[in-house]
Amino acid sequence: MEKKNSSETAGKAITCKAAICKEPGEALVIEEIEVAPPEAWEIRIKILCTSLCHTDVTFWKMNDGPERSFPKILGHEAVGVVESVGEHVEEVKEGDLVVPVFLPSCKECRDCTSTKSNLCTKFGSKFYQGMPRDGSSRFRNMKGEVVHHFLFVSSFVEYTVVDIAHVVRLNHEIPADKACLLSCGVSTGIGAAWKVAEVEEGSTVAIFGLGAVGLAVAEGARLRGASKIIGVDLNPEKFEIGKKFGVTHFINPTACGEKAVSQVVKEMTDGGADYCFECIGLASLMKDAFDCSREGWGKTVILGVEMHGSDLNVNSSQILRGRSVMGSLFGGLKPKSDIPILAKKYIDKELRLDEFITHEVNFQDINKAFEFQSQGKSIRCIIWMDK
Amino acid sequence: MEKKNSSETAGKAITCKAAICKEPGEALVIEEIEVAPPEAWEIRIKILCTSLCHTDVTFWKMNDGPERSFPKILGHEAVGVVESVGEHVEEVKEGDLVVPVFLPSCKECRDCTSTKSNLCTKFGSKFYQGMPRDGSSRFRNMKGEVVHHFLFVSSFVEYTVVDIAHVVRLNHEIPADKACLLSCGVSTGIGAAWKVAEVEEGSTVAIFGLGAVGLAVAEGARLRGASKIIGVDLNPEKFEIGKKFGVTHFINPTACGEKAVSQVVKEMTDGGADYCFECIGLASLMKDAFDCSREGWGKTVILGVEMHGSDLNVNSSQILRGRSVMGSLFGGLKPKSDIPILAKKYIDKELRLDEFITHEVNFQDINKAFEFQSQGKSIRCIIWMDK
Repeated sequence: MEKKNSSETAGKAITCKAAICKEPGEALVIEEIEVAPPEAWEIRIKILCTSLCHTDVTFWKMNDGPERSFPKILGHEAVGVVESVGEHVEEVKEGDLVVPVFLPSCKECRDCTSTKSNLCTKFGSKFYQGMPRDGSSRFRNMKGEVVHHFLFVSSFVEYTVVDIAHVVRLNHEIPADKACLLSCGVSTGIGAAWKVAEVEEGSTVAIFGLGAVGLAVAEGARLRGASKIIGVDLNPEKFEIGKKFGVTHFINPTACGEKAVSQVVKEMTDGGADYCFECIGLASLMKDAFDCSREGWGKTVILGVEMHGSDLNVNSSQILRGRSVMGSLFGGLKPKSDIPILAKKYIDKELRLDEFITHEVNFQDINKAFEFQSQGKSIRCIIWMDK
Repeated sequence: MEKKNSSETAGKAITCKAAICKEPGEALVIEEIEVAPPEAWEIRIKILCTSLCHTDVTFWKMNDGPERSFPKILGHEAVGVVESVGEHVEEVKEGDLVVPVFLPSCKECRDCTSTKSNLCTKFGSKFYQGMPRDGSSRFRNMKGEVVHHFLFVSSFVEYTVVDIAHVVRLNHEIPADKACLLSCGVSTGIGAAWKVAEVEEGSTVAIFGLGAVGLAVAEGARLRGASKIIGVDLNPEKFEIGKKFGVTHFINPTACGEKAVSQVVKEMTDGGADYCFECIGLASLMKDAFDCSREGWGKTVILGVEMHGSDLNVNSSQILRGRSVMGSLFGGLKPKSDIPILAKKYIDKELRLDEFITHEVNFQDINKAFEFQSQGKSIRCIIWMDK
């Protein structure tokens, strides 16, 4: 078999900097760690840049559940270059531009070979703290102690090891920071509009939450020719930002007086929106989104992970009147085939990505990205590893 | 304009027998009433036979809400012959075989002209007690007091008046009792399998409740080539009946030991059914049906009207894993175009209808049909007007 790894570092552990989350909610600490070489079906990636997704913040704060494992390396939205590959890896080679993704694709199971699902059945999500095949870690601190992985990516580090099932190869022509956006949130929103809701030309759309995912839903709906795109957000500044992605109307729930948001949306859309999206992760907003949906064919798409684990709750006689509720991870997209399509659409100047990037910081200032996010100031903050 | 009404009764009130519901839950009383001639856009139908649907029983017992209006004439599953037509009626003529349907179709509104909806926007459902255009009644008792309509049909009477929006013309070749079945429950189940869920060849199906609607879902799934059709019912006799409509597996929830029904379905289907149907109308079973659905693409279809008005409640992280919940009235079918298609499939010996008819009674014995239904003995009891 032809030797694939030609770099000096291949096959050896790499000592490099990582932003380590030691305790829930505490500032990340930049320290040196050792990153083991990739094992079979794995690759080691030199991260170019990474960004902060809302899910990182959720799990950063989380003090219980399967993610209660510290120290760990957060981060799951990133782009990098393949440094070296393990045994059996044919799909990518050293020097390739790759995007790691939390969602696996084995390309062989019933789900991966079906057009209807993007949830690989072969790789479940059993091992939240380590590599997907056996749960072990490729990270150790300088005392030799294990540092845990996060969402099969762990990108807040100069080098990470990712299973080939979690990697998408991209053409080098897309700039690193734009490719980084496609790794999670932006793809999720666009996919939800295109593949889950299947927004159509002339249709009406209501989006609860204009963060990166919600704005990406708007961008997806704009590209599909939606006639009205209504953004719902407590932050009035989001309307100006939203306009860049096609948002045509804005509702601030605190400025509706005695009217429910659903009533305002119904008035704007002559009876209810064709497609409603919940991009926050609150059961009460899921219900509100559903209540905005039109009788006859209104679809409500749930994208947010419910923050408190609460159930989704909707009126049972309302759903009978031709409504539906659907959920998806990663916007129903199949990472390996769909992310390259989105990248191509950016290159072809169809898809807007630049506008999502509101902040940029150097890796040593990574905690600032958490501040921007929690203050609601940033859509996406790009964290550059080498600057 | 050519005169359409040539019978002796046309244009005059008809005195005939009706089974009147005077108080909630009390036996119907057969009395003479006066049925006014049809007004503009209306037709008067001589009922050939009618049958009892679960919704009749629900509203027969109901003591509050918009249906709290007595005396009234229940019944909404029927077939008859046009006795006379009112002004502007071009769609049917005297002597035509027609099926009345609770669901209207104006054929002009945005919903009626869309393939996505079967809920006519022009005719809402404002007037539950009378005719759909103005809420007035065409029935009076012999004291001259108003007798209310029910669901825009009121078929427990020898002659009824129905708006043309609620009428479907059928070819005379279908026997009356089979046409009657297509008026509500059976069409609802078949439509849910075909148009709402879009059951595919080789797929797995779980059906909660093997009444007429649930069995019709099975029949629809059988015709679509589903490989496993799992019936869930507390009555073990339903398995034998279900086999006639393609049910391949049966679960009696009381015989599952410590296992949840969803666990049993998941074991039978290698992870969950592709399509799940709730045909009872209980929020707890809606949740159970959802829990049986497969990750990745599992659809849960709600057909039952929740008996207690409870909300639909499902796990919000489970729906994110590619699941969806959808509701429909009349199985998503458009009555005027789809009922004739089902009738044709019966004539062509594709669709099974005979097996739904388990009992037949004469009109004077109509209360027996309520007994059969409440004892769980009948799938459908045909009530013949002229025998």
